[in-house]
Amino acid sequence: MLSFENDYSEGCHPRILEALTRTNLEQLPGYGTDHYCAEAAEKIKAACQAPQAQVFFITGGTQTNQLAIDLLLHPTEGVVAAETGHVNTHEAGAIEYTGHKVMPLPAHNGKLQAQDLADLLHTFWDDASCEHMVAPGMVYLSHPTEYGTLYTKQELADISAVCRRYRIPLYLDGARLAYGLGAPGTDLTLPEIAQLCDVLYIGGTKVGALCGEALVFCQQPPARMAARIKQHGALNAKGRLLGIQFDVLFTDGLYFHLGRHAVELAMEMKWRFLAKGYRLWMDSPTNQQFILLEDAEAERLAKLVRYSRWEKPDAAHTVVRFATSWATTPEMLDELDRLLVAQN
Amino acid sequence: MLSFENDYSEGCHPRILEALTRTNLEQLPGYGTDHYCAEAAEKIKAACQAPQAQVFFITGGTQTNQLAIDLLLHPTEGVVAAETGHVNTHEAGAIEYTGHKVMPLPAHNGKLQAQDLADLLHTFWDDASCEHMVAPGMVYLSHPTEYGTLYTKQELADISAVCRRYRIPLYLDGARLAYGLGAPGTDLTLPEIAQLCDVLYIGGTKVGALCGEALVFCQQPPARMAARIKQHGALNAKGRLLGIQFDVLFTDGLYFHLGRHAVELAMEMKWRFLAKGYRLWMDSPTNQQFILLEDAEAERLAKLVRYSRWEKPDAAHTVVRFATSWATTPEMLDELDRLLVAQN
Amino acid sequence: MLSFENDYSEGCHPRILEALTRTNLEQLPGYGTDHYCAEAAEKIKAACQAPQAQVFFITGGTQTNQLAIDLLLHPTEGVVAAETGHVNTHEAGAIEYTGHKVMPLPAHNGKLQAQDLADLLHTFWDDASCEHMVAPGMVYLSHPTEYGTLYTKQELADISAVCRRYRIPLYLDGARLAYGLGAPGTDLTLPEIAQLCDVLYIGGTKVGALCGEALVFCQQPPARMAARIKQHGALNAKGRLLGIQFDVLFTDGLYFHLGRHAVELAMEMKWRFLAKGYRLWMDSPTNQQFILLEDAEAERLAKLVRYSRWEKPDAAHTVVRFATSWATTPEMLDELDRLLVAQN
Amino acid sequence: MLSFENDYSEGCHPRILEALTRTNLEQLPGYGTDHYCAEAAEKIKAACQAPQAQVFFITGGTQTNQLAIDLLLHPTEGVVAAETGHVNTHEAGAIEYTGHKVMPLPAHNGKLQAQDLADLLHTFWDDASCEHMVAPGMVYLSHPTEYGTLYTKQELADISAVCRRYRIPLYLDGARLAYGLGAPGTDLTLPEIAQLCDVLYIGGTKVGALCGEALVFCQQPPARMAARIKQHGALNAKGRLLGIQFDVLFTDGLYFHLGRHAVELAMEMKWRFLAKGYRLWMDSPTNQQFILLEDAEAERLAKLVRYSRWEKPDAAHTVVRFATSWATTPEMLDELDRLLVAQN
Repeated sequence: MLSFENDYSEGCHPRILEALTRTNLEQLPGYGTDHYCAEAAEKIKAACQAPQAQVFFITGGTQTNQLAIDLLLHPTEGVVAAETGHVNTHEAGAIEYTGHKVMPLPAHNGKLQAQDLADLLHTFWDDASCEHMVAPGMVYLSHPTEYGTLYTKQELADISAVCRRYRIPLYLDGARLAYGLGAPGTDLTLPEIAQLCDVLYIGGTKVGALCGEALVFCQQPPARMAARIKQHGALNAKGRLLGIQFDVLFTDGLYFHLGRHAVELAMEMKWRFLAKGYRLWMDSPTNQQFILLEDAEAERLAKLVRYSRWEKPDAAHTVVRFATSWATTPEMLDELDRLLVAQN
Repeated sequence: MLSFENDYSEGCHPRILEALTRTNLEQLPGYGTDHYCAEAAEKIKAACQAPQAQVFFITGGTQTNQLAIDLLLHPTEGVVAAETGHVNTHEAGAIEYTGHKVMPLPAHNGKLQAQDLADLLHTFWDDASCEHMVAPGMVYLSHPTEYGTLYTKQELADISAVCRRYRIPLYLDGARLAYGLGAPGTDLTLPEIAQLCDVLYIGGTKVGALCGEALVFCQQPPARMAARIKQHGALNAKGRLLGIQFDVLFTDGLYFHLGRHAVELAMEMKWRFLAKGYRLWMDSPTNQQFILLEDAEAERLAKLVRYSRWEKPDAAHTVVRFATSWATTPEMLDELDRLLVAQN
Repeated sequence: MLSFENDYSEGCHPRILEALTRTNLEQLPGYGTDHYCAEAAEKIKAACQAPQAQVFFITGGTQTNQLAIDLLLHPTEGVVAAETGHVNTHEAGAIEYTGHKVMPLPAHNGKLQAQDLADLLHTFWDDASCEHMVAPGMVYLSHPTEYGTLYTKQELADISAVCRRYRIPLYLDGARLAYGLGAPGTDLTLPEIAQLCDVLYIGGTKVGALCGEALVFCQQPPARMAARIKQHGALNAKGRLLGIQFDVLFTDGLYFHLGRHAVELAMEMKWRFLAKGYRLWMDSPTNQQFILLEDAEAERLAKLVRYSRWEKPDAAHTVVRFATSWATTPEMLDELDRLLVAQN
Repeated sequence: MLSFENDYSEGCHPRILEALTRTNLEQLPGYGTDHYCAEAAEKIKAACQAPQAQVFFITGGTQTNQLAIDLLLHPTEGVVAAETGHVNTHEAGAIEYTGHKVMPLPAHNGKLQAQDLADLLHTFWDDASCEHMVAPGMVYLSHPTEYGTLYTKQELADISAVCRRYRIPLYLDGARLAYGLGAPGTDLTLPEIAQLCDVLYIGGTKVGALCGEALVFCQQPPARMAARIKQHGALNAKGRLLGIQFDVLFTDGLYFHLGRHAVELAMEMKWRFLAKGYRLWMDSPTNQQFILLEDAEAERLAKLVRYSRWEKPDAAHTVVRFATSWATTPEMLDELDRLLVAQN
């Protein structure tokens, strides 16, 4: 059945399989010390224009968030996030498992606002009993957000400025970063992100890799990183699997190309929904499109195409998500188009 | 340079790459709910002759140990292991990170002894202050051990009997299980292991997979397994990557074939070392061979072939490890043979 | 200086000091196994009309909450609390330190509402991705709340019914329980609380003890309780210190008497504030009174009497707390009255 | 029944009860910010001749060890301790609960040896795979040890020198410190201990306090100490309870006097055991005396006097502990003497 269920339904971009096959019998040292990891790291640093950065490859997104946040926080600190942030909602308590509180702020179209953050920090440090409270020790944001929305350069700069005023690190979850960088109208580039944030991760799993996220410390990471990663159960014997994939993704701009491809098709998809009179739940410029369906229509479509149910805003409607990916083709959109019926 | 540094230097068995390529564009549900995971689980259950078992696929070995042990222990319990056990020595505190003590017992050629275990359990429960102590809540053993040695059926049965008398689970780390099952003279089969243990993991990473371990609960696993795995950061969006690999490994007995292949070459390698007068540090029937070298010889060889330094038993000698794998060829052994010189 | 800063400014009720002095040279076994602990537990069970209950004595409130919540939750579960609940705001992350999320719900005059709780639980278990989320595994409420307000019997029964429908325990933080039980107009008795809740703690520190809280499991507690308590660092060698104090507090109804005493004086205090034209921030029937002051008045009073600053609802006002206790005397109220000036 | 079961059987030294009674109605600020805590801290710093030190009062010993070790270690570090050390044996996994491994070294009469420690540290940092291992991040020792033995000045200086060479902190558990300082023949003073160690705790619970240990950071403690203590559940609202007690203990040398008193009686007790032909298990110069009894004699005595069973060195003998304390009187020793019978 036709599927727009998510952006990780297929395996990986063919060039990755080719590279894995080509390099398969090379004997390489383990635990991320091979030359593919080193080369991939160099390419990522170049793409970030951050020669001083350090890059670590981790298998999955929740693991990367769990690790990064645990690395960045002191014991009595928590991580500030939008209440809709992935770490607050859909990671089964992976952050709390490491002993840290997720401190939610209101989400504005899925995004944190600098003013809310500044207020939180001001109120906290002004509180006479702040030593009895969890200190806001870092900021987490996802770009694109869980609703496909994007920070503008100004918004991210404002948040970054607040973080630097209070000397707490800003961490960006880029599980779908390519789809943000490739969005129409975005004014944020990867080097700018690397400059405004202290740590970020560049997502591979949802952008054409079999698995893998690149965790980028824009400045110095903590001591004994290999031990920290291993203690989290996140150090792979065959680190090559991640290094080779990111080497491919960051060769000839493939990562950025995959992002643009998916977003172009998503914009076309959005246009087709709108042309048939469907309503958007949130206007996303990225690869995830959120549509507000009457329940009957949601049922009808569910028999014809796979999508994700997102939420129930009221008794009669359902918000659903249709996602494109590096593997989506124009033909799939045509097929979808034939399944849509004019709404009134 | 020729390398016997370990059994995870190459990528993966070619059939795995073929399967990943063949299935690459299939759209599959995420998080291990795809049919390849299901089929791989069925094949593993069949190989274990354990139809009631449940199988979960995890990326790496430390992660699997960390997860399994945390799943099996109550908060004030610890895991009993040989002092040389991987969880006690080389996992950067991954077990303690989950709040549990590793309780070491003496290692006999890398193995736990049932009598030591029985004594520990008897002494503990007989101690009037046992409520002030960590309770031995499960037993961890590796098969093959960290020194390549193997439990006999009687030894494992004796340990299992002690565990069942005290109603604590027995967990077997099978990172290199294929090399144990394929060893000459072993009298332990996979179904017997599945019967004597409560939980085990069947290692893929060191037996020809790109990554992945199959965690087998011979009886009922705890509630909310997906959430537990995710909370540990160990739930992969593209679960297919693990499912497809284990599906290949457990089709037509490939897993067992790879084990036998590596062990046959390891026995040949051992023979060649002995023929040249080298001394074994421990007599291993599996794919890891531990040789006691004079330091000068260790230096000489290090320029010609890659191996792992293991330990320094005295000022003049070094114990080194030479490992074969699914990817080792007879030609490599011939090449090694030419590098060895007669010892006196 | 006159002080209404809190209810733990003085040492302890004189009868406690007398009992400590009288029993001082008795040689008693340690770790809570002495007969005073046993007798105090019996008296508490009698006061709760809960003969099947089990009682454990813990030094402080945060420690008791941390322990109780950790004891009651499974690893991927969180504790539901009002957003103003003590465990969510003023325990420095003690709950998250044990690996558990605090799941905030809106506070209505400091209280949880059964409907909000029912909605949360229904939505959670209805969510297809609930295995990727923290499960609401218990409910925490404080009685009196952090704002001195009280649940009615109906409100507590409604919350209890929701908990039992979803088979999750209801835990009541009674740091100031005596002041709730002694409040005018309350229709909740201790036996009713013990029937509606699964676990509760009866606070001593804020009701005339030097330290100590009585943690009551209305049904069976988890296994190896002494080890669990010790693992939390909460098992005192001289358990007698807690046992003797609670034995005194639950002899001849002293605990209830102290509660009524403080509340009567608090009602008198409220009346005096109102008589002078001061405004209440929240109408509390218990020993904590929250007054909304203009900032200038707050400053003026601060030079004359000690109170606690609570929050800044706007730029010109401050909410302050005046608390009575077992040690407050009518003379102190007279002295306070002379410091108040008519407001307009 | 006459009892030498331990040194925490009675309540507290009468002067403490007097001080608690005398100060009972003083209104004091909470959480250890009162002037008694401040004065007690000053007196302790003076006794340590460490004006730059900082002192924190914690309720119990396990809690103090758990907190101090968690404060001093980085995440992938463990604490080195004698295998007989309290943190390794009798704290129900409280250290591991905070995520840290206890790294046991052989005990020599209950003591660590500097050479063993130096070897461990050298081997660790020399190991090529040290990033896969828990790093020895601090040293724990108890003085007196769990067997009543004492470090000499030279022994402690040697251990301290190793720690400083590897830049890891040395932590001394002084649960019974007074009994060490008051021992005949000891050449270690409190100022010397404070100079050789980085952190220590001066035990109150076992030296005449109702509860309480003074945690002394000889140099700068970590940031946000109140929050760290509260997160561990160890911050008492009525901090005065601890401050007043330590103020009494460190006024007019009471702490040291209590230590000497108990040790003098213990030496007398030892002499009486020896005079009757009993055998010592270990020769302790402090308040705990370990006697090797034939099982029949252990049974006989158990009906007449309370002691602690320690271990079973063989099938026919039992090691028992007789402890004196601040509350032991010469008359009790006379009574004990009458119960002993000549051994052959």
